[in-house]
Amino acid sequence: MRLPKALEELINSFEQLPGIGPKTAARLSFYLLHTPQGYLDSFGQAVINLKKNTVECSFCHNVAQSDPCLICQDKQRNQKIICVVEQPMDLLSIERTNQFRGVYHVLHGAINPLQSIGPEEINIDSLIRRIEVDYGIEEIILATNSGMEGEATAMYLKRELVKINQERKSKFRISRMGQGLPVGADLEYADEATLRQALEGRRSY
Amino acid sequence: MRLPKALEELINSFEQLPGIGPKTAARLSFYLLHTPQGYLDSFGQAVINLKKNTVECSFCHNVAQSDPCLICQDKQRNQKIICVVEQPMDLLSIERTNQFRGVYHVLHGAINPLQSIGPEEINIDSLIRRIEVDYGIEEIILATNSGMEGEATAMYLKRELVKINQERKSKFRISRMGQGLPVGADLEYADEATLRQALEGRRSY
Repeated sequence: MRLPKALEELINSFEQLPGIGPKTAARLSFYLLHTPQGYLDSFGQAVINLKKNTVECSFCHNVAQSDPCLICQDKQRNQKIICVVEQPMDLLSIERTNQFRGVYHVLHGAINPLQSIGPEEINIDSLIRRIEVDYGIEEIILATNSGMEGEATAMYLKRELVKINQERKSKFRISRMGQGLPVGADLEYADEATLRQALEGRRSY
Repeated sequence: MRLPKALEELINSFEQLPGIGPKTAARLSFYLLHTPQGYLDSFGQAVINLKKNTVECSFCHNVAQSDPCLICQDKQRNQKIICVVEQPMDLLSIERTNQFRGVYHVLHGAINPLQSIGPEEINIDSLIRRIEVDYGIEEIILATNSGMEGEATAMYLKRELVKINQERKSKFRISRMGQGLPVGADLEYADEATLRQALEGRRSY
């Protein structure tokens, strides 16, 4: 059976999104048939204008309204503590905690030899340059994910940062996000690697 | 933290889709930041033009490229057997079986007293009229869903159809989709209502 072309085009577009298979794509498209045209217009325009109306901050590489971004512009934040994350969404998650008052550096990826993503393919060079020219840096927090690629990236970064530190009198701290049991988790269901990290990182209580 | 306006608008649009929460909406929007503008343009245009470039078939109420739709126009199909479904997606599912060569009637909903959707709110009137003027009708297949609303709709329709049949010499058949175990299912995991239907609807073998 042939679907109307307009519907088929929309289903195809949805299908290319991550985590959306043919069935969900069809369900979403049929759902949109019942929504007001005003919503369709604003949704469609939002898709078309997404990249046109955002820029990448030339300091931290976060997606932003302006360059530099609001965080890099913010004089209230400690520009000497840089938290390195893989993706803008990671930054957003950390911001939601309302606990971090430093600035960020978004790598836009992680080192992944299997997909031939090396250090040159992600924003590591600009991070190194950013640190090299700033002798006041206090701390670099490596907040890449704790999977294989994120760990590899953190290890690579650590090596590079140690090199910079060796040439400095006032050294900056290099830290990594704490690992252990997620809040609310049961020991029973935790995997061994997590439990091992939780033991290693146990704190006086 | 304030997100760029363009990104926030897109996240809001995604969030209004069924089954897409705030996290998925953000994930999809951030994903789109890394896609080519050409894809964004065609996706956005597909959303905007969805309703402009589709029509509702005035016979079966399916979404279509033309009115009447390709199925209602098709002389190869048996126009005397009408399969009644709730939604266009249900029609699509039946078409995929390649087994039904009749035509359809899409109700665009089901009777649902809790949401004050009565028989007048869905395309029942037009179905009744369609049958009343056509004395050659051979069969009406009630293929509404087998949940509460679908059953209520099927029961309501049956009553109305029986009334029409009583005034006719050559009566049409009224049927309902078979119920029982889905193909590939284990008895162990089947619910009681399904097992009861499977027993009742058992076939000689």
